[in-house]
Amino acid sequence: MVDLRVRVAGPQDWPAIWPIWHRVVASGDTYTWAPDTPEAQARALWMPPAPAVTLVAEVDEVAVGTALLKPVQPGLGDHVANAGFMVDPDRAGGGVGRGLAEATLVEARRRGYRAMQFNAVVEANTRAVGLWRSLGFEIVGTIPEAFRHPTQGLVGLHIMHRAL
Amino acid sequence: MVDLRVRVAGPQDWPAIWPIWHRVVASGDTYTWAPDTPEAQARALWMPPAPAVTLVAEVDEVAVGTALLKPVQPGLGDHVANAGFMVDPDRAGGGVGRGLAEATLVEARRRGYRAMQFNAVVEANTRAVGLWRSLGFEIVGTIPEAFRHPTQGLVGLHIMHRAL
Repeated sequence: MVDLRVRVAGPQDWPAIWPIWHRVVASGDTYTWAPDTPEAQARALWMPPAPAVTLVAEVDEVAVGTALLKPVQPGLGDHVANAGFMVDPDRAGGGVGRGLAEATLVEARRRGYRAMQFNAVVEANTRAVGLWRSLGFEIVGTIPEAFRHPTQGLVGLHIMHRAL
Repeated sequence: MVDLRVRVAGPQDWPAIWPIWHRVVASGDTYTWAPDTPEAQARALWMPPAPAVTLVAEVDEVAVGTALLKPVQPGLGDHVANAGFMVDPDRAGGGVGRGLAEATLVEARRRGYRAMQFNAVVEANTRAVGLWRSLGFEIVGTIPEAFRHPTQGLVGLHIMHRAL
């Protein structure tokens, strides 16, 4: 079990988050953002103002993952959370993703969210789909051919959901 | 059949769009935006920069409806469109919604989108759900209890989709 500390990130954490963000998005196989998204745009996307909150996961005070937790809808739908997760590719498979996800679920519950919804889980990303299922998420539906995968062509995007 | 003209809206059209936008959102039964959303925020939401495009539907040069057409995802998912529609409540049931939706589907196809996806169709809004079904949309899935309806409590939000 990895000794992971997950905390709310501030502006001072961005320099440690950006290399992770960039590597994950540049791979082009898990997020819809353009693989060459520049740093300033990435920061605006990943560290938006409240009620969104950015989390950072650390091992021995080194950033190894990050999450973004926010309402999936504004106003009359803001009791359902949306979240995104990124793990340093060098740490993949080491339990960081699961630990970060569990901490984010706790944080979402603490903030009063009633459920969590993912809008765009790449169906070819079977590791992520398996992780979400093991954490209680169900596939609500799949948008066919909604993602241009770098090696698999057009693949579906799952919408996943669980109550909190 | 209503004699509807649908065209791309510019900044000069906002004063005619805002009263429709405000009445629709203030009702709190079809959109998640806060019913008291102020005008400046509404304008930013409904007239975002390209690649989004705002449409206005007119009868005898009077605005009777409006649509927002944009990518549902950025980057690697931007071949799927998202759209929102609003009709002057005084014109409800007169064919404006259908005419505007049909014109928006044509515009989406013209812009190269491969499909259209709605993220948050209030399941209690049976007229809208029926209209989308009649236009070839299918319910991909439903997020349970995702919308705080003013009279019906927590109701689901449908995700709907059709190819173009």
